Amino acid sequence: MMNYLRFTKQINFIKEIDKLKHVMRSSILLSGERRENTAEHCWHVAVMSMLLCEYANEPVDQVKVMKMLIIHDIIEIESGDTYVYDTVGLQDQEEREIKAADKLFSMLPDDQNREFRDLWNEFEAKKSHESKFAKAIDRLMPLLHNIGTDGEVWLENDIHVNQVMELMSQGIAEGSEELWSYAKNIIDDSVTKGWLRND
Amino acid sequence: MMNYLRFTKQINFIKEIDKLKHVMRSSILLSGERRENTAEHCWHVAVMSMLLCEYANEPVDQVKVMKMLIIHDIIEIESGDTYVYDTVGLQDQEEREIKAADKLFSMLPDDQNREFRDLWNEFEAKKSHESKFAKAIDRLMPLLHNIGTDGEVWLENDIHVNQVMELMSQGIAEGSEELWSYAKNIIDDSVTKGWLRND
Repeated sequence: MMNYLRFTKQINFIKEIDKLKHVMRSSILLSGERRENTAEHCWHVAVMSMLLCEYANEPVDQVKVMKMLIIHDIIEIESGDTYVYDTVGLQDQEEREIKAADKLFSMLPDDQNREFRDLWNEFEAKKSHESKFAKAIDRLMPLLHNIGTDGEVWLENDIHVNQVMELMSQGIAEGSEELWSYAKNIIDDSVTKGWLRND
Repeated sequence: MMNYLRFTKQINFIKEIDKLKHVMRSSILLSGERRENTAEHCWHVAVMSMLLCEYANEPVDQVKVMKMLIIHDIIEIESGDTYVYDTVGLQDQEEREIKAADKLFSMLPDDQNREFRDLWNEFEAKKSHESKFAKAIDRLMPLLHNIGTDGEVWLENDIHVNQVMELMSQGIAEGSEELWSYAKNIIDDSVTKGWLRND
């Protein structure tokens, strides 16, 4: 027989995370029509991880990478999305996100709260092979959106190539040198095209 | 060394599926603010499958269920979303979707084309335990949106309770009797509230 208290917690969480579809990111969709929301971003990186695991620096558990990417941004329902070059927002990002994780994941039954929280903690710690590779995917995706929309978000935020290089060389290379060498070419090309400042 | 032809196919597919974020479903988000797109729907049912597998009629491979749900609607980039009670659209739905699968998945390298196509074929065939349960999740989700938005989509399409009962009793009960008994209560309640026709 179904445990209704348990089931109610699960259903309430499922309803709650509908809100992630309203959390807007800075990325602009490749059509140029609108910005991306976090729910669709999480779906997109999950598919990406199904396709690109072969490029991870170390062999990774593909399933764990995928699960991490599916749940990694649920906390943004509470904390909002923080633009990666927003130095003010980044100051208290960790604190805001931990509070959000406490609040949201604890809606779940204890065992599932623990499962989701462990996945999220591991992703955030960036120590395991899986979390490093998941982070590489999460960093590469917005690069594809940037080059597909003529660097519009970089230009509106007056981003310098050094900022991108610093963030990406860490974020991508630690998970995948192969994806990083692809990303580096994209960044160089974006400088040539005037989408990134280089002064 | 990276095989660039292979990698280019993977990246082109990843860019192509950005379009799924523009495919609109009939479901209205729980906030009532707008309709849902298919990319965010696929994310939502993937999370749902991580939480509800314990209710499957038969033990299921949770990972396969999740992968099926992540990719099951990619074909809608080509075929569009067909409302489940759209009798005209349903006539050629299968044909349109197979053409779409041929076109989209064949953008991938052969092995990944095969992997995605096998998952999609299995989902569509609804014969394995995993596909029956994945279908149950895919059917239950819009029910949550319908009751959370006072049956707005049912009312605008003049839906009769018998249509919902027929579709859901097949789609949900075959995958999960427990979720079906929950769904049945929701449907009964929706009749009482006047959100579903009962004449």
